[in-house]
Amino acid sequence: MLITPGKLLAGINSPEDIKKLDQAQLVQLCEDLRQFIIDNVSVYGGHFGASLGVVELTVALHYVLNTPYDQLVWDVGHQAYGHKILTGRRDQFHTNRLYNGLSGFPKRKESEYDTFGVGHSSTSISAALGMAAASQYLKIEDKQHVAVIGDGAMTGGMAFEGLNHAGVSDTNVLIILNDNCMAIDPNVGALKDYLTDITTSRTYNKLKDEVWNLLGKLSMFGKSAQEIVSKVENGIKGTLLSQSNLFESLNLRYFGPVDGHDVNHLVAVLNDLKNIKGPKILHCITTKGKGYAPAEKGNATTWHAPGTFDKITGEIHKKIYSVPQAPKYQDVFGHTIVELAKANDKIMGITPAMPSGSSLNIMMKEMPERAFDVGIAEQHAVTFSAGLATQGLIPFCNIYSTFMQRAYDQVIHDVCIQNLPVNFFLDRAGFSGADGPTHHGAYDLAYFRCLPNMIVAAPMNEAELRNLMFTAQLPRTEKAFSIRYPRGQGVMPHWRTPMEEIKIGTGRKIRDGEELAILTIGHIGNYAVEVCERLAAQHIEVAHYDMRFVKPLDEAMLHEIFSTYKKVLTVEDGCVQGGFGSAVLEFMADHNYHADVKRLGIPDRIVEHGEQFELHHESGFDPDGIEKAVIGMLEHA
Amino acid sequence: MLITPGKLLAGINSPEDIKKLDQAQLVQLCEDLRQFIIDNVSVYGGHFGASLGVVELTVALHYVLNTPYDQLVWDVGHQAYGHKILTGRRDQFHTNRLYNGLSGFPKRKESEYDTFGVGHSSTSISAALGMAAASQYLKIEDKQHVAVIGDGAMTGGMAFEGLNHAGVSDTNVLIILNDNCMAIDPNVGALKDYLTDITTSRTYNKLKDEVWNLLGKLSMFGKSAQEIVSKVENGIKGTLLSQSNLFESLNLRYFGPVDGHDVNHLVAVLNDLKNIKGPKILHCITTKGKGYAPAEKGNATTWHAPGTFDKITGEIHKKIYSVPQAPKYQDVFGHTIVELAKANDKIMGITPAMPSGSSLNIMMKEMPERAFDVGIAEQHAVTFSAGLATQGLIPFCNIYSTFMQRAYDQVIHDVCIQNLPVNFFLDRAGFSGADGPTHHGAYDLAYFRCLPNMIVAAPMNEAELRNLMFTAQLPRTEKAFSIRYPRGQGVMPHWRTPMEEIKIGTGRKIRDGEELAILTIGHIGNYAVEVCERLAAQHIEVAHYDMRFVKPLDEAMLHEIFSTYKKVLTVEDGCVQGGFGSAVLEFMADHNYHADVKRLGIPDRIVEHGEQFELHHESGFDPDGIEKAVIGMLEHA
Repeated sequence: MLITPGKLLAGINSPEDIKKLDQAQLVQLCEDLRQFIIDNVSVYGGHFGASLGVVELTVALHYVLNTPYDQLVWDVGHQAYGHKILTGRRDQFHTNRLYNGLSGFPKRKESEYDTFGVGHSSTSISAALGMAAASQYLKIEDKQHVAVIGDGAMTGGMAFEGLNHAGVSDTNVLIILNDNCMAIDPNVGALKDYLTDITTSRTYNKLKDEVWNLLGKLSMFGKSAQEIVSKVENGIKGTLLSQSNLFESLNLRYFGPVDGHDVNHLVAVLNDLKNIKGPKILHCITTKGKGYAPAEKGNATTWHAPGTFDKITGEIHKKIYSVPQAPKYQDVFGHTIVELAKANDKIMGITPAMPSGSSLNIMMKEMPERAFDVGIAEQHAVTFSAGLATQGLIPFCNIYSTFMQRAYDQVIHDVCIQNLPVNFFLDRAGFSGADGPTHHGAYDLAYFRCLPNMIVAAPMNEAELRNLMFTAQLPRTEKAFSIRYPRGQGVMPHWRTPMEEIKIGTGRKIRDGEELAILTIGHIGNYAVEVCERLAAQHIEVAHYDMRFVKPLDEAMLHEIFSTYKKVLTVEDGCVQGGFGSAVLEFMADHNYHADVKRLGIPDRIVEHGEQFELHHESGFDPDGIEKAVIGMLEHA
Repeated sequence: MLITPGKLLAGINSPEDIKKLDQAQLVQLCEDLRQFIIDNVSVYGGHFGASLGVVELTVALHYVLNTPYDQLVWDVGHQAYGHKILTGRRDQFHTNRLYNGLSGFPKRKESEYDTFGVGHSSTSISAALGMAAASQYLKIEDKQHVAVIGDGAMTGGMAFEGLNHAGVSDTNVLIILNDNCMAIDPNVGALKDYLTDITTSRTYNKLKDEVWNLLGKLSMFGKSAQEIVSKVENGIKGTLLSQSNLFESLNLRYFGPVDGHDVNHLVAVLNDLKNIKGPKILHCITTKGKGYAPAEKGNATTWHAPGTFDKITGEIHKKIYSVPQAPKYQDVFGHTIVELAKANDKIMGITPAMPSGSSLNIMMKEMPERAFDVGIAEQHAVTFSAGLATQGLIPFCNIYSTFMQRAYDQVIHDVCIQNLPVNFFLDRAGFSGADGPTHHGAYDLAYFRCLPNMIVAAPMNEAELRNLMFTAQLPRTEKAFSIRYPRGQGVMPHWRTPMEEIKIGTGRKIRDGEELAILTIGHIGNYAVEVCERLAAQHIEVAHYDMRFVKPLDEAMLHEIFSTYKKVLTVEDGCVQGGFGSAVLEFMADHNYHADVKRLGIPDRIVEHGEQFELHHESGFDPDGIEKAVIGMLEHA
């Protein structure tokens, strides 16, 4: 079902078409755009609240800027649906986040309007500053470089690094702070409080409003806005506002706060700012879910990406099952940490801004003094956890595999080198699914197993996850312990199994066989179970081992395997370069075995978005792919 | 030669002994400590300016705090020599940075006074906050948690993440900003300008001085400093200072700036701050190299770690050679980038705060508009480079291997996923030497080669580095290109060779042989040359290939090798897990070869500090180790 756009939106095939509109029509265009997003997301799912919140900003930016010549960078990109719809992708928008469809994030390959691919937060200032520095060097003076960044993303340290550099650059960069007090979950930290402070401070606002009114009025008479601003600034200097603002402290001209839902005011402001050279920041106040009452009034986290819903009633569709379903690994983690923490008062939970995504919110609710949301701050989350560990506490630090990339140095420098017993839970390991390559947890097995003092494990099912969690909280004086699991459902509807210790570095034999053994790590092992059954039906018996640990490897088990089988197939939901399979190869070489070993896993190229099983299929390690690989190896003499 | 400490310092075997002194004696203790550092470093080398700058702060902290019960975290740790000397390590201090000697950085294994191991910057706030949060949870109310962090380290995004969390915590954490306007090179960025502003603002200082005078005077009469501060704060609120400070914006109580060389004043201030609960920051102004005239007056970068010197004249010892020496790889990089950039106007240089270390300072001097020092901000450096690349420029982004760990996500997310042609130069790859494990560039081959769209190369000598640099700047529309090289000298005194393109993914055959081939990557290949010669003298001919690229591997060459040799030895100055040797194993398995393969490299444990050759020896891949491995493999039928 293709969604019909409103009449005005139907005529917008590129930002050129927006510029042809009378400014008075922009309000209606916003209306059309908002409705189109609601219509689409209610039927097809996707991210919701963020894009609704920037409808006016999106329209104003494309109205005022000369995109794609002017460079517009969206931080994270959850909010860029309107941008996509206005830049020639309206009629493909129903394929958003589907296999072979549009990406849920801006992406350079997809459109020249997507100047910089995003997905992870806090990159936009650095990217836009790089573009602006290039223009400066190339002596291109008329080009605008704009980063749109949320207040949540602004808590990421990288954003601060960008500000610190921007403030001493003489580049033409505009940072738009899209302040809605939210990340995916409510934003946290001192910066958020500060932004609320300056937004609600009447003295400050009054003065700022006067500045803006002055700007607005005078520019009508044709005077240069720059002249006026510099005059106003001089007036401000020496008064209350001297060094009064965090951003001004960093030598960025600060403008705002402005109402991010007043498209005409935004157009006026952006037109003025276009003429003000140098690094500057515009503080925009927006509401996530703006214009859709259930989202505005409801839980903003729920409406961040609600799935499909009834757009009239606002009821979010829930699947109804007649049989018990396996839980999400996330919920197994969330409930089990609480269960363990009740019995062990040293366990502490840490998440960088993913309480709902990781289900640590269950612990935050039940024992708030023991569970920390530290903001979008993976680096800090890891070293903070290390600090807790030095005092004898037992940190369970939950970070998505893809975001752990951002704390890699802290894992090495603050945890592994010091040999501290910190526990890491790598959520959404393997293919992330619809979020695509920026969010795939493809590399963690490779980038963690090369580190000393690091235990690397992955459970094949819910009971195994619980047992690994139980094991991780037992007293231990050294070694980091990382446990990875995928996004989504496990395989055990009745998952609240009694927990028991797993000896570190031991695997499980699932099935005996002849000639060939399949070695798997983690949830993907369930595919191998299916394959073994399929093959058994054809009277082919292959062995299957769930290795459970990539590091340390179960050496006794591997000696058994390489002594018994001449052919070994490794399967992992992770990159084949340097991952689990390579660890098996290293064992084989170190111990002078000479089996045929094939490795299945994420190939050495960027795999795009799609359902997890579609990506497993494309990568050749769904059950069909594994079966084919086994047959191929068996046929090869 | 053991350095004799001054009389007062000779009696200090732990901070307990400092507390026994009259406060009036602290000035003399500072004098002794400073002299001891000068005497030691002038003879034995090491870091210099930073420790001299915090002599008074170090003495005051150990006088006031109840260390090691109170938790003191030194950021980076270059400045912790005084701390080590006062905490029981005076008589071992001459072993500083030597193999099996004291570490140049604080280290938990070395002393209970070293609460958190450091080396990389900007970790101290997170670590101290973790400790403080633990105390809070454990209801320990009398414990102090102090982070000492430089203004350079404060530019690292991670420090901001820590501040953002600290500001909303109710923990008892004190952040001491040691502001000397320097990192190793002069500090850069908007924050530095801001700190200078508040330091030199007379109004601000006057008011703050009054506050401090008031505090000082009244506390003499036994009133609680907390009472007074809160009174003063109320006075300040509503005046000029309301929200007037970047740190106060983040809800940290800000105190200072204070003279970091007035030990008595520091003692008074720290005693007062001890009684003020909650997160707070003390801004201390210090001078790097304080108290040693040549360092104070001279170039602070030179005196950061000057090597040995004549303490009377201040003349830094230079080695005098009668024959031409091979240059440092760093200088080859620094001169060659300028040479290339003169011919190719698209080349841009980027360094995160290591202009002198990387020798990018040569380009910064010759073409300042094309070379950027972005501050201690590796994440920003990478994404800023990616931004430059989107505009058609050719970034040469130089980051030490160990610091690249901190930009790992940006390399994946902003460069590799987008397939942008950014060039990375990984300096100090392999063992760093005296800096030890925090600075070893051990993991980069493993953590980079698992990434799609990444070329991974390492030159065996200066000419190869120049050729790789030449190749990297040729027009190319995709793929990141990483080139790693070690700290220190190459092998070619006459290194200004004409440059030529190297075909990506091609190795070099150095020597033919029988039965066994040694495959090396990078500079360490020179050891293999020596080994082959030694063996030839014993009439053992082994082959040697300089593979030059870890990714893509030279597959034609590997087919030749595995078709010819039944034994293959790989050697790399990088971790054996998942590194170059593993890539060779993967090739072998993928193509059904079954040779005996042994891998030499950095073992799977933390290797401590020492001279590079000592660490190569310990790890079994110095020439002796390689020779032994070859003989072992040849003897094994």
